[in-house]
Amino acid sequence: MHKCIYERTPHYYETDKMGIVHHSNYIRWFEETRIHYLEQMGYPYEKMEEEGIMIPVLSAACEYKKAVRFGETVCIVLKVEEFNGFKMRISYKIFGKETGELKAAGETRHFFTTLDMKPVRTKTSHPEIYAVFADHIGEDFWEEV
Amino acid sequence: MHKCIYERTPHYYETDKMGIVHHSNYIRWFEETRIHYLEQMGYPYEKMEEEGIMIPVLSAACEYKKAVRFGETVCIVLKVEEFNGFKMRISYKIFGKETGELKAAGETRHFFTTLDMKPVRTKTSHPEIYAVFADHIGEDFWEEV
Amino acid sequence: MHKCIYERTPHYYETDKMGIVHHSNYIRWFEETRIHYLEQMGYPYEKMEEEGIMIPVLSAACEYKKAVRFGETVCIVLKVEEFNGFKMRISYKIFGKETGELKAAGETRHFFTTLDMKPVRTKTSHPEIYAVFADHIGEDFWEEV
Amino acid sequence: MHKCIYERTPHYYETDKMGIVHHSNYIRWFEETRIHYLEQMGYPYEKMEEEGIMIPVLSAACEYKKAVRFGETVCIVLKVEEFNGFKMRISYKIFGKETGELKAAGETRHFFTTLDMKPVRTKTSHPEIYAVFADHIGEDFWEEV
Repeated sequence: MHKCIYERTPHYYETDKMGIVHHSNYIRWFEETRIHYLEQMGYPYEKMEEEGIMIPVLSAACEYKKAVRFGETVCIVLKVEEFNGFKMRISYKIFGKETGELKAAGETRHFFTTLDMKPVRTKTSHPEIYAVFADHIGEDFWEEV
Repeated sequence: MHKCIYERTPHYYETDKMGIVHHSNYIRWFEETRIHYLEQMGYPYEKMEEEGIMIPVLSAACEYKKAVRFGETVCIVLKVEEFNGFKMRISYKIFGKETGELKAAGETRHFFTTLDMKPVRTKTSHPEIYAVFADHIGEDFWEEV
Repeated sequence: MHKCIYERTPHYYETDKMGIVHHSNYIRWFEETRIHYLEQMGYPYEKMEEEGIMIPVLSAACEYKKAVRFGETVCIVLKVEEFNGFKMRISYKIFGKETGELKAAGETRHFFTTLDMKPVRTKTSHPEIYAVFADHIGEDFWEEV
Repeated sequence: MHKCIYERTPHYYETDKMGIVHHSNYIRWFEETRIHYLEQMGYPYEKMEEEGIMIPVLSAACEYKKAVRFGETVCIVLKVEEFNGFKMRISYKIFGKETGELKAAGETRHFFTTLDMKPVRTKTSHPEIYAVFADHIGEDFWEEV
């Protein structure tokens, strides 16, 4: 059995006049899920920044399958699809918590940089950060229950 | 010569602590550009909604090439890449206004629905709305100057 | 002893280039806290809307005492200061969870309306909704532990 | 005769499921108006930051009179109500462009700081920045036409 780690209840201000969550917010939810992943891995993003590492976004994409409505809770999972120490691709799925229905799927691509946006090879420069991603490639980010 | 139609100056609240415009806002700028396009075409989105037509987003994607900073102005162009009356694909390019530098490129896919989200074939049901897109497939949305 | 009910970790996209949470987001956090309060009271906002009641905002105000930074957790409390069945005033305080430091304080004023924005006197029309607020005037919204 | 300087058309993503512009966005529009004022005064905010000056927000407040809907254009004016070189109070009014109807009114309070948030007395340290505000206390920020 698996249990979703990152649950999210849409905020009222995230809805639009169609009555559903505005599509741009899913891109923000992907970021929240990444940040949550890092925290669960024991390496919060603010700690990375303190050590001089940032992970800017190279691309973001989302396919919208079913609208998310105010009052629903969604469960967001991620998977580190590819990672070589300086580039990374992460995929995401958003499910309705009650129904299990797939609401949306997407991915983001990133690279690792210093605070002044110079590329960094974390394998040698920051092995602890490297491990946070390298040790979990292809794993579904779910909690065992 | 061409002149950009949709100019946009980033708002301070659109920046993040990296000091650049947060990547999720580009998806919002794409929407602004679509809305602006409709207005220029003489068929504002609010008029579509009044006539019972919505254009929900099926997918959105963006590639980030260069950061956009507060104080810069960007120019956003769009192109109706595909349209058959009930589905549509639009591409976008974001340029630095001063430099002409490509900042980002992306696309969104849409379908046309009634206000209760039922698919609609605009060619027969709403020929005027159909023309707004069908007559401009493949055209760059720039102003001639 | 008291325990905060509504905890909130700032999202990266809520920061701005000053490196702190943008001040407009506090107004959104106040809304989140209201929504959370309703849920805790057993009367979620979506249920109110289903029964034809909305609670639009008449005014909002916030005093910013200390910046909230990414990586911090805040605790937000609210108090129903005034309520007479058709108008309401709510106050809020935002504390640093670790430090207990007061980060911000504010208030919002509301009225109760039908879905087409006509004022409603909930005492007679919706006694259950009336009780959600009337029974807790002046109470601090903290969890006893 | 006067003409509004800062016009704003609400974005679709600024609406919520009530079908109107979400109240938190008015606080963001106030910021946009301040930034626009500075640009009109020949002293853009990014130039201030380059010279080491920031103007953080001490408080923000807004009274909502009439809903702003998608498809409407509003006109936002500001007035420097008080300024002594290190503290400032600005008031705002949001009007419907077509109707002239008052939609909302609010104010923000600020202080002037260095980039590391130390208070600054601009009269002696940055006389040019001082003049941008001191020379216009009590003036309505409208364009003469």
